[in-house]
Amino acid sequence: MEMESLKELFVHELRDAYSAEQQLTEALPKMAKEASGELKQAFETHLEETKGQIARLEQIFETLEEKPTYGNMVCKGMKGLVQEAEDLLSEDGDKTTLEAGMIAAAQKVEHYEIATYGTLRTYAEQLGQTEAARLLEETLEEEKKTDELLTQLAVGSINVEAASQA
Amino acid sequence: MEMESLKELFVHELRDAYSAEQQLTEALPKMAKEASGELKQAFETHLEETKGQIARLEQIFETLEEKPTYGNMVCKGMKGLVQEAEDLLSEDGDKTTLEAGMIAAAQKVEHYEIATYGTLRTYAEQLGQTEAARLLEETLEEEKKTDELLTQLAVGSINVEAASQA
Repeated sequence: MEMESLKELFVHELRDAYSAEQQLTEALPKMAKEASGELKQAFETHLEETKGQIARLEQIFETLEEKPTYGNMVCKGMKGLVQEAEDLLSEDGDKTTLEAGMIAAAQKVEHYEIATYGTLRTYAEQLGQTEAARLLEETLEEEKKTDELLTQLAVGSINVEAASQA
Repeated sequence: MEMESLKELFVHELRDAYSAEQQLTEALPKMAKEASGELKQAFETHLEETKGQIARLEQIFETLEEKPTYGNMVCKGMKGLVQEAEDLLSEDGDKTTLEAGMIAAAQKVEHYEIATYGTLRTYAEQLGQTEAARLLEETLEEEKKTDELLTQLAVGSINVEAASQA
């Protein structure tokens, strides 16, 4: 891989995000399956958003005249985060405690994406890719909203219930 | 592993963070070695902070009468993030572009930690562990400041220089 300019780094990071989101579309249905109520709903909604975010990335690849692929460059960061989440799904224990743990894992994923899209949007601005910057900003806002929703679910009910098991 | 209460989940997440920080103390010197100027300084400063954060985690384990270990539970999230950063260190290319990439990788690490310590502090509050909550809040603020500093370095100079290679 060449890394001679910000443009090349931008494309590299776009491919990394593209791999990350594909991995997430496989993990979210598993998480939704083990969750209930508002948390299940949050995972299902975010799955739909993630599909839209993948479509935005494809639109950006098209603008840049780059193939929408990540080849053999599977995003290792997301791979680790998804493994952490899936390890938790295989645990036995109190259902609400496990849901609190799923929220923790999901917020790590969201923060990974907040860092990723924050960087990508900044690169796009720097490179004068105005339309790409706008699309990346849209995704960034969705990720931040999902993170906030997860915090609300945790603080508002799930942690409280889990703490009552202590 | 048992996961029957928020207290058990709290200890589980503390061990995960303990493993994550240990991995980071090994990765940061390698990143500092490849960086220059203010970025090198930022990685070196964060290495010292990370050692202090490990000491805070040990203090919390002591309060909880838990052994300060993570056993064979290596934090997979951080493992993936560190691999991503180290893959970049082995790339050839324009030095400033690679530094921009290192900032991107480091911000993913910082956001991982922001999510982790945000969750841990909330658990501590929920469990009435006031002193632990205070220590975790201190670390959380350090992680946020490091993330902001990295943004400043990227936007203020490194990305601009890298873009001039485009």
